[in-house]
Amino acid sequence: MNNALYNHIKRFVDIDKAECSKLLGYFDHFNLAKKDTVTHAGEKCDHLYFVLQGCLHTYFIDNNGAEKTIQFAIEDWWITDFLAYHHQIKTEYCLQAVEASKVLCITYEKQQELFAEHPVMESYFRKIYEVGYGAAIRRLQYIFTYSKEEIFYRFRDEFPEFVNRVPQYLIATYLGLTPEYVSKLRRKPVS
Amino acid sequence: MNNALYNHIKRFVDIDKAECSKLLGYFDHFNLAKKDTVTHAGEKCDHLYFVLQGCLHTYFIDNNGAEKTIQFAIEDWWITDFLAYHHQIKTEYCLQAVEASKVLCITYEKQQELFAEHPVMESYFRKIYEVGYGAAIRRLQYIFTYSKEEIFYRFRDEFPEFVNRVPQYLIATYLGLTPEYVSKLRRKPVS
Repeated sequence: MNNALYNHIKRFVDIDKAECSKLLGYFDHFNLAKKDTVTHAGEKCDHLYFVLQGCLHTYFIDNNGAEKTIQFAIEDWWITDFLAYHHQIKTEYCLQAVEASKVLCITYEKQQELFAEHPVMESYFRKIYEVGYGAAIRRLQYIFTYSKEEIFYRFRDEFPEFVNRVPQYLIATYLGLTPEYVSKLRRKPVS
Repeated sequence: MNNALYNHIKRFVDIDKAECSKLLGYFDHFNLAKKDTVTHAGEKCDHLYFVLQGCLHTYFIDNNGAEKTIQFAIEDWWITDFLAYHHQIKTEYCLQAVEASKVLCITYEKQQELFAEHPVMESYFRKIYEVGYGAAIRRLQYIFTYSKEEIFYRFRDEFPEFVNRVPQYLIATYLGLTPEYVSKLRRKPVS
């Protein structure tokens, strides 16, 4: 069993190593190079990814042809287009490695088998999605509440490593800012 | 068993009426008058609501003292501050009835008992949250992509009854617009 996934599952549900070791058979393991794309916009969304090492993001192309990052995932985060994945339809997003990454990948079909054979994983994903849903709502609140400068500083305070690791043009679109604006803020000293 | 909840659960998981009829014991049933508040900002968030009839919203008070709607729930929708509910901490949101409403309410503690005794409900809520999480990300995409006018028209096209039913100042803050702007757009004929 991959230790990172085992440790993550244990944080949310009671599971022993023997059962957990059976779970890995449901997953594929990939190494991704920087900028490798695992799902393209327009493809059926039937894969879910867990980041072991590195960073992935989903982005879409806006009306002006610009790439806009809508989600990030670093170590121990799950990522896909959850709405398209749930409905098993085409996604509007590209899912790409921001940096060289190692991921575990499960197909929708395999995940349904996983739920049937290991019901504890229903509880695990119910909790993962509960947190993800709540955090996405909180992100909307920030966008509606704070000035662009406040949004950047709150994000930097909450995820300092992230800001130093991820290209600033990606952070900019994720926060609804321009790359030039983030570049200017980033040069300011940490308060 | 309440038929609305039974019909909703059946849409997501295989469950028979006998098992479903046992679920109602975990819930309280409330009638709410318009503007009744069920959770205040600053209170521990330990209740989850299912709307049988009517409409609820969560809102917060922004830095200028203005109420901003962050979520709506109409019939068959679940609502709470999911992040605070998951962590069993205080919420920053008020949860209030927009119109006279009937709701089912479950406490966090009762929901954990429900999961232990009826594991099929883990699957049901996993799917509810999967959709909610995906939809919240899609809402962020709209905010980053479309002009204010496009955001309103897309919302109106997707939820026409909603726009006619809910006060426009609530729709405005939900979409990140001013009430005056929504009022102006609403008077335009449907294209």
